[in-house]
Order: sequence, then C-alpha cells, then structure tokens
Amino acid sequence: MDTSVTTKLQIRKPAKEVFKAIVDPEEIGNYWFSTSSERWEQGRAIILRYDEYNAEGTINVLEVQENKEIVFSWGAESGGETVVTITLKEVEPTITVIEVKEVGLNENDSEIVNKMLGQKEGWVYTLTCLKAYLENDINTLRASLVH
Amino acid sequence: MDTSVTTKLQIRKPAKEVFKAIVDPEEIGNYWFSTSSERWEQGRAIILRYDEYNAEGTINVLEVQENKEIVFSWGAESGGETVVTITLKEVEPTITVIEVKEVGLNENDSEIVNKMLGQKEGWVYTLTCLKAYLENDINTLRASLVH
Repeated sequence: MDTSVTTKLQIRKPAKEVFKAIVDPEEIGNYWFSTSSERWEQGRAIILRYDEYNAEGTINVLEVQENKEIVFSWGAESGGETVVTITLKEVEPTITVIEVKEVGLNENDSEIVNKMLGQKEGWVYTLTCLKAYLENDINTLRASLVH
Repeated sequence: MDTSVTTKLQIRKPAKEVFKAIVDPEEIGNYWFSTSSERWEQGRAIILRYDEYNAEGTINVLEVQENKEIVFSWGAESGGETVVTITLKEVEPTITVIEVKEVGLNENDSEIVNKMLGQKEGWVYTLTCLKAYLENDINTLRASLVH
C-alpha cells in the first residue's frame, strides 16, 4: 500500500514569496505553527511550537533549494518519522503551485488510514491558510481545526 | 473498515450566518461551487456547478434543521452515492463549530483510501474557504486545488 500523502495548491504569488513564508521564522505564525526557532536551512534542527495546543516538535531540515524545494523529516519523537518534500513550481511569474508530499507512514500501523487522513487534513488546511496569508494578508485562519 | 470521513472546523460567526452561507444560492460561489440552482430545502434536488472545471452534479437534500443540520446525498451519477451530514454547533454566540461527516464510500473499492483522502481534501478546503469568506469576506480562495 502506498502510504504517501500528496497535496497541491495554486497560490497567486511568486515562488520566492512562498519560499520565504515557509523558511522565515517571522512569517510562520501567520498561517501555521505559532513559532519556528530559527530560519530553515539545510542541516538545521528547528523547533516548531503551537502555543494554542501547548505543543512543540522538532524538524530536521535535510535539503533546501532556494525558491524551489525544502525537504525535512519530523515525527521521530513519536516513533513515526516521516519525510516531507515541499516543491514550488512558478507556473507564471505571479502564480506558484506548491506541492507537499509526505512519505514514510507505516503501512502496518492499524491506524494507518486515520493517520493518512490526519496528515491530509493538516496539509490542506496549512496550505489554504498560507494562500490566504500571502494573497490577502489574513493571519487569523490557523489553529481552528477541531479534533 | 470505517469509510466515513469527518472534518470539524471552528468559525467565528453565529450558526445562522454559517447556515445561510450553505443554503443560500447567492453565497456558495464565494467559497465552494460556482453556483447552486436554488435554495437548499428538504426534498429538493439541487444542481451544483463548477464553471472552472465545466462540471456539475446533483445533490438531494434529505433533511434541513434551520441553523443546525443539513443532510444530503450526492454521487449517484457516478455510482458511488454517499450521504453528507453537516452539523452546526454554536459553542458561543459568535462561534460555531461546523462538522461535516460523509458516509457510504464503498470499502470494497480498490481505490477506497484514495477516495477517502480526496473527500477529506475537499471538505477541509471547502470549510477553510468558508471560514475565510465569513470571517474576512475573502472570496478568492476557492477552486485552486491542483490534481
């Protein structure tokens, strides 16, 4: 069973603006986690914090290609490490398609389908909040999913 | 295998405004389909159209409780009819939790997991666009998922 989870969304902004919103710790709190401990650069371990849920986790940035690709791993703390590849394709000078592909969810986990649905939910929500932030300067959509 | 797909999101508006945004054909084009053929009322068949994808489908409204619940079926054309229950809970006078539960996806379908992920993607996206429309009057987020 293919346990990868892929989500693609079009954002009406240049790739460099989308890239900056992800790697720059000044921006993440507008659409995703509350804070990011430092700029995302290859080889760094970054602490992401959700103030609303009093939760934090670490991501390991494996690869960064400016304005094009970011690869990181996360979830090692919970024994379920996965690898996330974020790819930016500038299809027109002011339009970027962002693709997020997460691989490594354990197909033998009895809750695998629910875990895939959970990751899908998180990515669709995050990317839509990112779109609203970049296109409309709205930073109040995040952290409203209910579980 | 439980093939239901459930999504819940908090919207900072009274339930009556969330309800109206769903049933009133004047509003749907701001966050979901392009058009709805008429007001959603119990017993009616409604044609929903996506101009962007040159696609349309019919939903059958099975039950409506004003400001509280909407139940409809859809997908009969493609041989995969499901039932969707939208529930509104006004947790504070200006805060509503909207829950969408879709049931009836065929567990014997070889593509069942992909279909569940597809429905999850659609609902998270639609509810987030609905939130942005109601809270921030933004109507440009819809129809930007890429497949």
